[in-house]
Amino acid sequence: MSLVPVPAHVETSPGELPITSSFSVAIDGYQEPRLDRAVERLERQIARQTGLPMRIGRGDTATATLIIRCDHASKPVQDVDEDESYDLEVRPDKASLTAPNPLGALHGLATFSQLISVTPGGFAAPAVRIHDAPRFPWRGLMIDVARHFMPVDVLKRNLDGMAAVKLNVFHWHLSDYQGFRMESKKFPKLQEMGSDSNYYTQEGAKDLIAYARDRGIMVVPEFDVPGHATSWFVGYPQLASAPGPYRIERRWGIFDPALDPTRKSTYSFLDGLVGEMSKLFPAPYFHMGGDEVNGKQWDSNREIQSFMQAHAIKDNHALQAYFVAHMEEIVSKHHKILIGWDEVLSPSLPASVIVQSWRGQSALADAANLGHRGLLSYGYYLDLMHHADEHYSVDPMSEATASLSPEKKKLILGGEACMWTEYVTAENLDSRLWPRTAVIAERLWSSQDVRDIDSMYRRIGRINWELELLGLTHRTSMDAMLRRIAGQDDVNSLWVLAQTVEPVREYDREVLATQRDALNSGAALNRLVDAIPPESKSSREFAHLVERYIASDFRDATTEKYIRAQVTTWAENDARLQPVLAGSFVLKEDAILSTNLASIANIALEALNYAHSNQIPAADWVAEATRTLEDAKKPQDDLVLVVAQPVEVLVQAVSKAKP
Amino acid sequence: MSLVPVPAHVETSPGELPITSSFSVAIDGYQEPRLDRAVERLERQIARQTGLPMRIGRGDTATATLIIRCDHASKPVQDVDEDESYDLEVRPDKASLTAPNPLGALHGLATFSQLISVTPGGFAAPAVRIHDAPRFPWRGLMIDVARHFMPVDVLKRNLDGMAAVKLNVFHWHLSDYQGFRMESKKFPKLQEMGSDSNYYTQEGAKDLIAYARDRGIMVVPEFDVPGHATSWFVGYPQLASAPGPYRIERRWGIFDPALDPTRKSTYSFLDGLVGEMSKLFPAPYFHMGGDEVNGKQWDSNREIQSFMQAHAIKDNHALQAYFVAHMEEIVSKHHKILIGWDEVLSPSLPASVIVQSWRGQSALADAANLGHRGLLSYGYYLDLMHHADEHYSVDPMSEATASLSPEKKKLILGGEACMWTEYVTAENLDSRLWPRTAVIAERLWSSQDVRDIDSMYRRIGRINWELELLGLTHRTSMDAMLRRIAGQDDVNSLWVLAQTVEPVREYDREVLATQRDALNSGAALNRLVDAIPPESKSSREFAHLVERYIASDFRDATTEKYIRAQVTTWAENDARLQPVLAGSFVLKEDAILSTNLASIANIALEALNYAHSNQIPAADWVAEATRTLEDAKKPQDDLVLVVAQPVEVLVQAVSKAKP
Repeated sequence: MSLVPVPAHVETSPGELPITSSFSVAIDGYQEPRLDRAVERLERQIARQTGLPMRIGRGDTATATLIIRCDHASKPVQDVDEDESYDLEVRPDKASLTAPNPLGALHGLATFSQLISVTPGGFAAPAVRIHDAPRFPWRGLMIDVARHFMPVDVLKRNLDGMAAVKLNVFHWHLSDYQGFRMESKKFPKLQEMGSDSNYYTQEGAKDLIAYARDRGIMVVPEFDVPGHATSWFVGYPQLASAPGPYRIERRWGIFDPALDPTRKSTYSFLDGLVGEMSKLFPAPYFHMGGDEVNGKQWDSNREIQSFMQAHAIKDNHALQAYFVAHMEEIVSKHHKILIGWDEVLSPSLPASVIVQSWRGQSALADAANLGHRGLLSYGYYLDLMHHADEHYSVDPMSEATASLSPEKKKLILGGEACMWTEYVTAENLDSRLWPRTAVIAERLWSSQDVRDIDSMYRRIGRINWELELLGLTHRTSMDAMLRRIAGQDDVNSLWVLAQTVEPVREYDREVLATQRDALNSGAALNRLVDAIPPESKSSREFAHLVERYIASDFRDATTEKYIRAQVTTWAENDARLQPVLAGSFVLKEDAILSTNLASIANIALEALNYAHSNQIPAADWVAEATRTLEDAKKPQDDLVLVVAQPVEVLVQAVSKAKP
Repeated sequence: MSLVPVPAHVETSPGELPITSSFSVAIDGYQEPRLDRAVERLERQIARQTGLPMRIGRGDTATATLIIRCDHASKPVQDVDEDESYDLEVRPDKASLTAPNPLGALHGLATFSQLISVTPGGFAAPAVRIHDAPRFPWRGLMIDVARHFMPVDVLKRNLDGMAAVKLNVFHWHLSDYQGFRMESKKFPKLQEMGSDSNYYTQEGAKDLIAYARDRGIMVVPEFDVPGHATSWFVGYPQLASAPGPYRIERRWGIFDPALDPTRKSTYSFLDGLVGEMSKLFPAPYFHMGGDEVNGKQWDSNREIQSFMQAHAIKDNHALQAYFVAHMEEIVSKHHKILIGWDEVLSPSLPASVIVQSWRGQSALADAANLGHRGLLSYGYYLDLMHHADEHYSVDPMSEATASLSPEKKKLILGGEACMWTEYVTAENLDSRLWPRTAVIAERLWSSQDVRDIDSMYRRIGRINWELELLGLTHRTSMDAMLRRIAGQDDVNSLWVLAQTVEPVREYDREVLATQRDALNSGAALNRLVDAIPPESKSSREFAHLVERYIASDFRDATTEKYIRAQVTTWAENDARLQPVLAGSFVLKEDAILSTNLASIANIALEALNYAHSNQIPAADWVAEATRTLEDAKKPQDDLVLVVAQPVEVLVQAVSKAKP
């Protein structure tokens, strides 16, 4: 079994349910068209998982392989207080899925398809009893479609991915400095002048919302105010705190423009827009952003300054609180609950407002102590290129939140993975989201004590493949990108290098980009750094080999052989790869990485020889090797040669070995 | 440059046109919306080819990088007598594409995007003057959607592939024993009872036809009569020559049911259907099939026999001619030109009828001598799993057709690649079509003397990648299939085996399937044979290495090293792969292939050692090795271990070497 997320209770028993072409699903009890569509999706997915021809459509309760029973309907509009539990029993002759409502049944179907695998006897699901329910009610994914626009079909396939790992909130970051991406019929200049024609029609949004609803996902829109709104001001400069004209922002960063929070007209505009969008989006939540206002436009606007004096608003933080209070009124008027990033928090903030924290557990604890529900996104920023295990280790109920009172703990709703898209396009979005989003999904669904990293990485293999079958391109797109980068069909030697490097982490790319003057939305994202995954599987596996070899006191001959084979491949790759690198301007800067890979591979070979012959290398060899390795670790073309680290571990171990 | 198909005239000059984000296309002269859509497709394709952000939409003639000029419109309905020529000039500062009509311009745009590649200085198209026009006016691809249904989106992406290699006819084989796939509003029981609900709506067909038209492709429907029509008789048994009831045929093969050609009611039904379909399909051609009537139902029907006597119809061949003559009248009445397979030919056949030949050039020559236009499909049957170079060597104007008079030669319109889908589903259709269809496309477009096989295989790499960018899954789907087959994410060792085998050829799968009793449309196509491509690139490359090594009298040390590395991988693979094979029922029968691969690899290693040390092996070693190799060549699980052949070549050469 290889389930992601791990269910709450699993009880296995002997035997298995064969999955053949005569597999069918029946629906008993409460029925609705959404369940029928879910059954058809399951059948299509099983067809893809097995290659068996499947009859698509609902089967007969008397003969069906799997019977679904729901007690009653879900809420007409999905909310986070719904029962998402399900019970799945697989026996050698039949399977049954029971759930209070279709939402739970959808989760159970996701589990069922993950149970199926090939066996020596055929395709089968193991006999098992599962009782499952999520740990947190809010398990979200935010995608920023403002910095780079993502077409509806790209979002849809990612909604499929979300449903596969039981995420239930799609947080749609629809506006920012660089674009306003949703059609407004009331204020059409928002998209007409603020989107470079890259926006969603309301028709498209409705379609996406229905698609998400079918998959047990609520869609929460975010329109970021009062900062992050330059794109609004292109069409409506009167909203800003400084006179226009404005242009769509092309750079990345934090910028001065902000809504003028002192004018009535600002709020009547927002009332109109929130009203329009509240009708379009059925979810009971409305995200207003509220982050990163630098206050400069407010400081230099005399009218704003005198307004603040007149109203005893002592600083920009108080002015922001004043704005948020008005937003809350507007959003409440339209029957929605306001959500904002950390910065919306102030002592006067109405308790109903939900705080989404990029700052961390202590900010969430502070909010909870003021009575606010909270969502953790700190530690779940996928754009920072962290490894899966790092995200996995972050828990919404840890550190400051862990010591909240039981009552206050209930206010921690869960969390959201966040994908900011400065360096992400429709082409590589999937590879930035997956499989790491699945790991965060498990953190939010499964018990807190589910934290075995080896198990998590093992199960990622299966979910990777499942996501591929759902149409996600997180692995397949890399091949096409590498061919483009290399300008040739044979990319074997480029693959070897690509598997040893990782993108720089945190905000290092922004720092390096400033140096190369490519810090803008028009820059091509077509280099090696954009094609490779955030995490090198080869490097992780190589590090394990090195660990195992050292732990054996250099006696494990099989492991030594594997290490030798790997580093020999690296050492020999440079000669083959350099002509490829020379032929492509995109790869020019990577030549040194390839050379470095050969150098450190040769160091590893020498280290192996020392270890193999029970010799300790001379101090100057160690010093020279260490210098080379340190040098090889420096970022180059936004890439880091991550296999240098385990080679260094090997060198250090060899230099200290007892002969 | 890596163009497929090779243009008629290419004149290169120094320099290149840089392709950057500011690339744009303008349209001068004759304009129509189809051209605008083609420009947008080009821009999107260039964006995928380069990863550059592109402005989508028509640019300004004053500043555009590429200017398109057409003289006049194409025909409102595409036909094969249109001028498809174009002239493309790329200079270091600008490019211009001129064509008599949009059809030529579409071909020119396909060429332009193939010119772009990565260079040491950036993305660029080389400076070049191309004058191009096709050798044959009819360059088609037939897809059988009756034996396995192919959804519209699967067909659409293959139309994109066709347009990329300048194919201009999509021959849609819409009905057969196993299914009637087109909605008829006049005779709805055709699809309702004859398709298992897998059929195209007329709306869907119109959409596909428009999609094809946008890409310069004419859609020709085929409704196969009087044989191959069992699916019609499920709803309309009165059409058959024996009483029903009938069921949709589930087996593969040739079956008895045939339309009754003696009844008026048959023709009034056909008149109704042809009339309805002639309105739906604007193309001036209508394909009636007409192949493989075994005549058994006719022989055993007394009324048919007495009809034949009464009308002096002396045998079934004459009865078929009688039927075809009636079909021709009906089709003519609806303003279409009849096409049929070889079997429609008879001396009395009206000259307007086009003959499509699966029999070969001499059948085409016979038809031409009777005044018929003809299409070659013999040699282009993609389901037979031939290699690309075999298809490449077949020319419509060779053998019997080469000696036709110049006048008669004009009757040879071109040819069609044919994809019969007994063993093809939507999942592996792309990998069965591509890249081999591109090779046939080149045969039909390019000059007859374009026949360098090495050049063809080299250029296939580029077209493979281009097809991938267009959304075709001929390579990417294999990975997901291998993971399903192996039941695990790491399929490296399965890949090693998969690259050394090919599917059995010709109709061997049918022969072997009969033995295993899986000769039917319900059988799962989910084994290794269904995942791998028809042609092993590894095997071809390995055979080249062996040739080169032998040609050097075993002195080429580099080649020896490559051969040794390759066969060592094969020799060592079995131990890793056997546990994988044991875990999956789908792979059980392949265990012997893996063992055989190890055996022949060890033979190759021994042969290398003899060669390396200038020794001639003993006769009994050669005999034993040859026995093992012959054994390893036997089909297993519908697969052939094709690398056994070059190993045998090596063994033979070593055994004859002069020491």
